[in-house]
Amino acid sequence: MTAGLIRGILCSENHPSPLTVKGWVRTRRISKNCAFLEINDGSCLSNLQCVVDRDTDAWLAIEEADTGAAVSVTGTVQPSLGKGQKWEMLASMLEILGKAAPETYPLQKKRHSDEFLRGIAHLRPRTNKYGSVFRVRSEAAFAIHDFFRAKGFYYVHTPIITGSDCEGAGEMFRVTTLDPFVPASGQGKTIADDFFGKDAKLTVSGQLEAEALATGLGRVYTFGPTFRAENSNTPRHAAEFWMVEPEMCFADLHDDIELGEALIRNVTGHVLNHCQEELGLFDRFMSPGLLDRLQSIFSREFDKISYADAIEILRKSGQKFQYEAEYGSDLQTEHERFLAEEYFKNPVAVYDYPKDIKAFYMRMNADNKTVAAVDILVPGIGELIGGSQREERLDYLKRRISELGQDPDDYGWYLDLRRYGTVPHSGFGMGFERLVMMLTGISNIRDVLPFPRTPGSLEF
Amino acid sequence: MTAGLIRGILCSENHPSPLTVKGWVRTRRISKNCAFLEINDGSCLSNLQCVVDRDTDAWLAIEEADTGAAVSVTGTVQPSLGKGQKWEMLASMLEILGKAAPETYPLQKKRHSDEFLRGIAHLRPRTNKYGSVFRVRSEAAFAIHDFFRAKGFYYVHTPIITGSDCEGAGEMFRVTTLDPFVPASGQGKTIADDFFGKDAKLTVSGQLEAEALATGLGRVYTFGPTFRAENSNTPRHAAEFWMVEPEMCFADLHDDIELGEALIRNVTGHVLNHCQEELGLFDRFMSPGLLDRLQSIFSREFDKISYADAIEILRKSGQKFQYEAEYGSDLQTEHERFLAEEYFKNPVAVYDYPKDIKAFYMRMNADNKTVAAVDILVPGIGELIGGSQREERLDYLKRRISELGQDPDDYGWYLDLRRYGTVPHSGFGMGFERLVMMLTGISNIRDVLPFPRTPGSLEF
Repeated sequence: MTAGLIRGILCSENHPSPLTVKGWVRTRRISKNCAFLEINDGSCLSNLQCVVDRDTDAWLAIEEADTGAAVSVTGTVQPSLGKGQKWEMLASMLEILGKAAPETYPLQKKRHSDEFLRGIAHLRPRTNKYGSVFRVRSEAAFAIHDFFRAKGFYYVHTPIITGSDCEGAGEMFRVTTLDPFVPASGQGKTIADDFFGKDAKLTVSGQLEAEALATGLGRVYTFGPTFRAENSNTPRHAAEFWMVEPEMCFADLHDDIELGEALIRNVTGHVLNHCQEELGLFDRFMSPGLLDRLQSIFSREFDKISYADAIEILRKSGQKFQYEAEYGSDLQTEHERFLAEEYFKNPVAVYDYPKDIKAFYMRMNADNKTVAAVDILVPGIGELIGGSQREERLDYLKRRISELGQDPDDYGWYLDLRRYGTVPHSGFGMGFERLVMMLTGISNIRDVLPFPRTPGSLEF
Repeated sequence: MTAGLIRGILCSENHPSPLTVKGWVRTRRISKNCAFLEINDGSCLSNLQCVVDRDTDAWLAIEEADTGAAVSVTGTVQPSLGKGQKWEMLASMLEILGKAAPETYPLQKKRHSDEFLRGIAHLRPRTNKYGSVFRVRSEAAFAIHDFFRAKGFYYVHTPIITGSDCEGAGEMFRVTTLDPFVPASGQGKTIADDFFGKDAKLTVSGQLEAEALATGLGRVYTFGPTFRAENSNTPRHAAEFWMVEPEMCFADLHDDIELGEALIRNVTGHVLNHCQEELGLFDRFMSPGLLDRLQSIFSREFDKISYADAIEILRKSGQKFQYEAEYGSDLQTEHERFLAEEYFKNPVAVYDYPKDIKAFYMRMNADNKTVAAVDILVPGIGELIGGSQREERLDYLKRRISELGQDPDDYGWYLDLRRYGTVPHSGFGMGFERLVMMLTGISNIRDVLPFPRTPGSLEF
C-alpha cells in the first residue's frame, strides 16, 4: 500500500516526486545509454514505461530486470516523449523484489495458445488477455450488484449443499463424508451415518430458496456458484459456474423480460464505460467488431417474439440446421444463434413455450398449453437468460407436480409459499460466464473462469 | 414493477395520486367506521399504514385481509395523524392477491422463539427480525464490494470444487458422482471412474488460488462459500458459510492489519448509515447497546499487540479461564473475547504467532520462531479476521513444507508463484457470517444464514 497503482498514475495530472511503483517487468529494451522497462502491476492493462539512464544507481539492477521479474522503481513521472503513452517515469532507483528465472519462465514475450495457457492457469492472469478478462469479470460482477441494489433487490445467499433434487435441471454432484471406495454398507454404514444424515447434493439453482426469501424481502437475487455433473465437453459448459438469479414478487412475465433486458443493457453500458482499455484489446486482437456489438446491445431495444413465432421464422428461414426446428421441441443453440445473429441481429426475448419442454414451476398460460417462460438470446452466445413467471396458484402447481409423476407432499415448504399469502412473482437465471463471454468476445468458457472445472479436469 | 416500493414512499415528499402498493398484511385492526392495515412489502422494516373506510369499495375485501395475506391497495398517500409514521394511505381499492389461511399460518402476531423459526426458515424472512437480518446481510455484502473496488481490488471467483487438500484448514467434504452405498471397488470402479478422475473436495479456502490471481492483478479478493465437514454443533460454526479473502501484492503484515481494520470500520460505517431502522430494532429488542458498540468500532482506532503480549495480559488478568492461556497454544474463544470485550473494550489485532500453531504459508519472522500472522478480535465474536503475510521466499517455503512432513513437489503450481517474480504479499480471511453477527448482535450463526447447514441438518 506504500506504492502508487499504475492505473491511478496514468490517469492523474499531478504526481508527487519522487514516486515509487511496484510491479512486474513486461518487457525490457536496453540501448546504449539507457534502458526502457515496461512495468505492469495488474491494476490496469497499460504498463508504465520506466526509463533507466546508464549513469544512475538504477542501472545496477537492470541486468536482473528480466521479463516477469518483480521490481520496485522510484523516480519522477514526466510527460512521455514516446508514442502510445502520456506519462513515463524517469527512474532513480530500481530494486529487484523477485527474479524471473528467464530460462524456465513460461510467459516469454511470444504469443501463446489458449490451450497452453489453460495448462498454466496459475500464471495466465499475468498476460494481457487473461488479466483483461478477469478485470472485466470483476467489473461486470460489480455492475450486477449495483444494478439490483438500485432497483430495491436484496442480495441473498441460497444454500450450495442441498437436500432437494426437485429442480430437475440436470445431473447433480453428491456431497458426502463417506468414502465411495470403502463398501459403506459392508461396514454396516447407512445414509444416517453421512454428515447430513441424508442424500446431499451440490445445488443446480438457488431459485426455490430465492422464492422463499422473496416472499419476505419482496425482491431478491442470488449470485453464487452452481454445479452440473454432466459429462459434456463443449466450449459452453463447465461443471462449476456462477449464476445470477433474481426473484421478484408482484411481477409478471412482462416485468421479468423488462428486468432481464434492463440488466443486460445496464451491465453492458457499465463495462463499456469502465473497461474501455480491455474491450479495446479484445476488439483489436481477438473479437473484431466487439465494441460495435456491445454498443448496439446497450443502446437498442431488444426484440420480443413468442416461441410459436420463433418456430415459424426458423422453419421459413430456408436455413439448413442440424436439427430441424419443430413446434414442441426446445430451441437448439444453432436456432438461438440464428435468431439473434442472423434474423434479428439483436438480442431477442422468446416467450410462451409449450409446457412439456419447461419446468413444473412455470406459470400455466390461459391456453393451458403454454407456460409464461422466457429465454433471452444474444448474438454470439445463444441463451443468456432463462426465466419465467412462477406458478403461484396452489392447485395448478400441485396438479403439475402430479402430472410429472411426482408427489406434491415432497414439495411441502415450497407449496407453503402458495398456501400463505401467495403472490404473482417472476424470476430468471443468467449464467455469469456466458455474460462475460458476451462482454469479452471470448468463445470458450474455460477462458473466462480463473480455474475451470470440467470432466476429468480439476487442476489448481 | 407497477407498484411503488414502501421504502420509497415513506422517504418521499411527493406522492402521485392514486398510488398502488402491493405487500403483505402484518396486522389488521377493525373499528366501527374504518379499518387499519399495516402493509409490509419487504423493501424496508417499516409498514405502510392503510386506512380503509367502511363506505369505500375497499371495505368489501377487508374480511379476507388477514395477517399474512398478500394485498394490493390503491389510494392516496397523506400525512398521518397517528403516531409513529409520517405518511399513511387512504385506501380506495383493496384487492386480495393471496389469502393467508389464518387457521394454519404459523406466523401469527405473537412472538416466536428462534428455534421455532429455524424450523420454518422458508417463512421467517417475513418476520421483522429475520427480514432485518437479511437486509443488513445484503447491505454489508455490498459495502464489502464497494470498499475493495475503491481500493483497486478485483473480485475473483476461486474454485469451489478443489483437488488440493493442502490448506490444512479442517475436514473436507468429498464431491463425487459415485454412490458410497454401492461398493464401488466391487463393481470394478476406481477413482478414475469418478467425474474428475481424482479425489475432489469442497474448498475450505480460496487463498492459494487467490494468491495466483494476485500475482497477475495485483490486488484481488474472493467472496464465496467455503465448507467444513466438522461435526461441531456450536452457535459459531456452520458446515457452509461465506468467506471474504483479499490478497494483495507488495504488502506486508502492517499493510494487512491496516486493510483489515479499514474493511471492518468501513463496512460498519456503511451499515450504520444505510440500515438505521434495522439496527434500531436490534438495539431496542435483541441486543441492547448495539448502536453504541458499532459506533465505537467505526470511529475508534483498533488496538494492536503481539501474541506474546496478549498471553502476558491473559496470564496476569486474574481471570479464570476454562483453558489457561499459555505461550505456544492457540488463543481460545474465551481468551479472544476477554481481550476484546474486557481488556481493550475495542477490536484488537494480535500479531506474530508462534510458527507451530500457524499454517505453513505464513511468513517466518527474523526470530525464526514466530510468523507474520494476525488475528483481529472483535467484541461479541472473538476472531473475525485471520490473516498473514505470505512466505514469498522459495527456500523458506519449501523448508517449511518439508518440516511438516509433506513433499514440496505436491505444491508445484503454488511454488511457481515464488519461482517467477515473487513479491511480498499478504491477505486474510473474514467469515462473512461472523461479520453479520457483529453487525446485528445476533449470537447464533443459524440465524444469520438464510438456510443454515449443520451436522444432520439439511432442510430446505
